[in-house]
Amino acid sequence: MRPEAFVFDAYGTLFDVHSVVARCESCFPGKGAQLSQLWRAKQLEYTWQRSLMQRYAPFSTVTREALAYACEALRLDPRESEALIDEYLRLSLYPDVAGTLRKLKGKKAILSNGSPDMLLPLVKNSALEFDAVISVDELKIFKPAPQVYRLAVDRLGTKNIGFVSSNCWDAIGAKSYGFDVYWINRAGAPVDRTGFKPDRILKTLDEVLL
Amino acid sequence: MRPEAFVFDAYGTLFDVHSVVARCESCFPGKGAQLSQLWRAKQLEYTWQRSLMQRYAPFSTVTREALAYACEALRLDPRESEALIDEYLRLSLYPDVAGTLRKLKGKKAILSNGSPDMLLPLVKNSALEFDAVISVDELKIFKPAPQVYRLAVDRLGTKNIGFVSSNCWDAIGAKSYGFDVYWINRAGAPVDRTGFKPDRILKTLDEVLL
Repeated sequence: MRPEAFVFDAYGTLFDVHSVVARCESCFPGKGAQLSQLWRAKQLEYTWQRSLMQRYAPFSTVTREALAYACEALRLDPRESEALIDEYLRLSLYPDVAGTLRKLKGKKAILSNGSPDMLLPLVKNSALEFDAVISVDELKIFKPAPQVYRLAVDRLGTKNIGFVSSNCWDAIGAKSYGFDVYWINRAGAPVDRTGFKPDRILKTLDEVLL
Repeated sequence: MRPEAFVFDAYGTLFDVHSVVARCESCFPGKGAQLSQLWRAKQLEYTWQRSLMQRYAPFSTVTREALAYACEALRLDPRESEALIDEYLRLSLYPDVAGTLRKLKGKKAILSNGSPDMLLPLVKNSALEFDAVISVDELKIFKPAPQVYRLAVDRLGTKNIGFVSSNCWDAIGAKSYGFDVYWINRAGAPVDRTGFKPDRILKTLDEVLL
């Protein structure tokens, strides 16, 4: 049975974060890859740690804090960092996103860790249309808490949801909650071992149509 | 005011995980550092993700699953991995641990993510004596959830606790809960940015006595 609605993660799934990596390299030549990798790792860690500590802060704050840590760890000048944060508001779509969403039947939504101050301008700039753009911010807890995935059920009025994410841990969180899950594994990474597996592993977003 | 009781994290704080790194290198020459780093990163990630998903598994399971992921990611033979897991049961104490604990006034306890099957043999082998050896396993959630730190209060009968950890995120979790916190920063890492700071940053465990 095909899902009645499709719910997409935003960062790395619809929106290509490659331009952030490129900007890191242009700000800090020779250190871009290391900086963007540590920044992303800390950004995720902090969402999980803050959720568990019951000390939520918006993703925009967490993203800044993770960047401050990464700059200090790599001994880079944090004054350059505001330009890097701005890059998050100007991310490009992956090339197959607009066509895939146009062809896909059923309701479509975004479910993102991004706080509205980051997420809404990005979606607006993309010119994509969704039945719902849902941020975890209204619950003050991050993925993969089950109540986050439940938000999509409440908003779309169906439990028959196909969930699409390029983050394996997010796909597994959605599977644990009960969605039909598509993991976009562009990098050919191993499946995370946390008790569940994605239903389907895709190379590119447009394989959702198959 | 000095704390009435001291509560210690186990892995990396009292017990030196360096021997695990050495064993990784002897099993997989040239890949040891990369393997132990990815293994540890995934071990922590999985504790946070499983806690948030409300899908707890014992730390021994999480540790095996993280190693399976790391071996696949680095294309290493997972059949070698059982020897690496065993290493966790035979960790050495840091050289200043026994002397410091002997001199320290007040109750002393361990509060660890380690499940009893990993933690108890390790403590027994160490010949150290504690008023309590507490595992998060009884709550089925990992650090830094606040209820984990509350376990120590309940068991020791005092809220006036000095908490000692070499993991900055653990120190911050304990601070967020309300303990007086000592972060053992042996590697000279930056402080994590998640809203709280350790009360004191030490280079070695014996500075707790100062």
